[in-house]
Amino acid sequence: MIKQIEGGVCAPAGFRANGVHCGIRKNKIKKDLALIVADTRCACACVYTTNLVKGAPILVTQKHVADGYAQAVVVNSGNANTCNDNGVEIAEAMCALVETHSGVPAEDVVVASTGVIGQKLSIDPIANGMEALTKGLGQNSSAAAEAIMTTDTVKKEIAYTFMLDGKECRIGAICKGVGMICPNMATMLMFITTDASISPQMLQKAISADVKDSLNMLSVDRDTSTNDTMCIMASGLAGNCEIVAPNAAYKTFCKALHAVTVAMCRALARDGEGATKLIECRVTGASSIKNARLAAKSVIDSNLLKAAMFGCDANWGRVLCALGYSGAALDVDKIDVAFRSDAGELPVCKNGRGIDFSEELAKRVLSEDTVYIDVELNDGKCKATAWGCDLTYDYVKINGDYRT
Amino acid sequence: MIKQIEGGVCAPAGFRANGVHCGIRKNKIKKDLALIVADTRCACACVYTTNLVKGAPILVTQKHVADGYAQAVVVNSGNANTCNDNGVEIAEAMCALVETHSGVPAEDVVVASTGVIGQKLSIDPIANGMEALTKGLGQNSSAAAEAIMTTDTVKKEIAYTFMLDGKECRIGAICKGVGMICPNMATMLMFITTDASISPQMLQKAISADVKDSLNMLSVDRDTSTNDTMCIMASGLAGNCEIVAPNAAYKTFCKALHAVTVAMCRALARDGEGATKLIECRVTGASSIKNARLAAKSVIDSNLLKAAMFGCDANWGRVLCALGYSGAALDVDKIDVAFRSDAGELPVCKNGRGIDFSEELAKRVLSEDTVYIDVELNDGKCKATAWGCDLTYDYVKINGDYRT
Repeated sequence: MIKQIEGGVCAPAGFRANGVHCGIRKNKIKKDLALIVADTRCACACVYTTNLVKGAPILVTQKHVADGYAQAVVVNSGNANTCNDNGVEIAEAMCALVETHSGVPAEDVVVASTGVIGQKLSIDPIANGMEALTKGLGQNSSAAAEAIMTTDTVKKEIAYTFMLDGKECRIGAICKGVGMICPNMATMLMFITTDASISPQMLQKAISADVKDSLNMLSVDRDTSTNDTMCIMASGLAGNCEIVAPNAAYKTFCKALHAVTVAMCRALARDGEGATKLIECRVTGASSIKNARLAAKSVIDSNLLKAAMFGCDANWGRVLCALGYSGAALDVDKIDVAFRSDAGELPVCKNGRGIDFSEELAKRVLSEDTVYIDVELNDGKCKATAWGCDLTYDYVKINGDYRT
Repeated sequence: MIKQIEGGVCAPAGFRANGVHCGIRKNKIKKDLALIVADTRCACACVYTTNLVKGAPILVTQKHVADGYAQAVVVNSGNANTCNDNGVEIAEAMCALVETHSGVPAEDVVVASTGVIGQKLSIDPIANGMEALTKGLGQNSSAAAEAIMTTDTVKKEIAYTFMLDGKECRIGAICKGVGMICPNMATMLMFITTDASISPQMLQKAISADVKDSLNMLSVDRDTSTNDTMCIMASGLAGNCEIVAPNAAYKTFCKALHAVTVAMCRALARDGEGATKLIECRVTGASSIKNARLAAKSVIDSNLLKAAMFGCDANWGRVLCALGYSGAALDVDKIDVAFRSDAGELPVCKNGRGIDFSEELAKRVLSEDTVYIDVELNDGKCKATAWGCDLTYDYVKINGDYRT
């Protein structure tokens, strides 16, 4: 029913995108300015970082989408426009430039920035680049995905089709960085477009619920950025009946949305700074959804476990240790743990006690680029999944000298 | 008034110690079994890990010190004796061996283990080593400090004198690992001895209060061990009037205790796995002590900041970011931040905004082996200090292949 397609944020009807190098970044080639423009005014909903230190673009975006509608997204990388004297002024100026060049009113523009905190962002390169950026608008989701990257090594975009009222709908996304609410390596930005027709209220309800089991369960380093933003715009051009209540169509829409956010979470975790592998922790048998989430997130967050995963070391004691301090209510003597990958399955702990396993098989299982950690709490029927990555020399290298 | 002296846990009157290699660890030289024996039955108080997964030795120790008294401490390194089928049995057997060889009743023995989780601990090497361990008891605090080390690179011991009722009292400690309540790299163990006379109740009150501003403010990697134990024994041989109430003598005792625990926290943080430097974050001007502690701890806990400190990068945005997600109530626009070391002071942020600074001075300040991060919240009169270290390649190396 939900089928993956090409096109990223331009797959849904009514969206054009582009990305250019305007010169914010020292690197002379890397694109650093992105724009998404919708043909129509869209229902729009956002969720933001919970960090008390909030980037100036978030303050401006919150004001612009307060009425539940937006029509464009402008994003720069290379500078977070945060903790500056004139951050709000610059963010407003970016929106005004979009109005000048595309005709979309500034108050319908979502603005975001990612990069170094505390350095002034000049409007000049953005003003200079805006004409080329706007002129090149088209089916260029990939260019926009590239332009928002910072230390990302691959661009991240996805799109799916799904059916509502017999109408084919599309939903697409681009994102960068990693993290939200808890985690972050620099800034997590995710922009989702859809041509499904849905009210601003239901759109907000959908993404606010979705992040609990998607972005909030993602962690690279437990640092929460000042600029995290997830934004969704719905053009309504697919022609389905507008979703205005939590009915069956709403549930279908939420499933498609979740397919997008989970795919993006996996891509973000896999590309976590310095990461060599994606770690997915699946907790089952929890007594509550809250306990399941706490347990899964705690395993993914453990530096000790992340370093062990880098070393392909089946040090399951660190899984138990992380479960023990997770804050989740659990019975240690009931816990089963297994590592799993394409190379096989490796049960390592039963009822909270170690069981014999082959070190040779362990090395093979943990050497794959996607490793699952299955935790069965045997304490109920609730479950949760969290995504993360290993902790490597390169994480230290990248973050030991990011600013200078 | 409080003066540092030599002797570690043997500095106070009435304590002997020793450490030997008994063969638990594969390494043929490293000492792995420690013993501290008091001449008299001592008032004793402990605090333990809050991890729900608790090492078997903790369960046994809790039982043995339930009456507020103990007379000996036995510790092995190389195996945490945790998540095993027969962990409690082995821990009890260790105490029985102490009784056999030293005459101290098993139920007056504190037992602790540190090392790998989930592997069976054989009593054989411990039984074989106990005679040499007991025979060698004397002013050997250093041998005991060595025997409890795991990935520690230096042994950690300290002692101070202080006066109570005109009597000279002494307090000494050995410790290993790092962390408590929140943090841990493997297991934090700290054993403190004193010849001051103090009731078990007041001793417990003193250490329970002290850890809030000492061990609980220490973090290497935010992983809380299953075996963390801090234990203090008071022989009373100094001859002061027994402290039985929170009077002036109690306050003096608490100051001496705090001098010991802070010195040990600094030593633990400096020797954090892979660390090249000690990071001390001093938060002042907080509206409550809780906010001060949350803010200081959050800065020390940030992987991003820790990596920046390794790279001598004055990336103060990461300090603000960590303050913002700390959970502390604060006004971002009032925050001042400075880095400081023996090489000078470097104000980097005033009222939540960046201020110009010399990159050359920044490198010099951050290249020292002790770096202070001063955070003034300008929001009240409360303060707190937290200790941590930088995040380095060696942290990843050590923990990527610890078990095998």
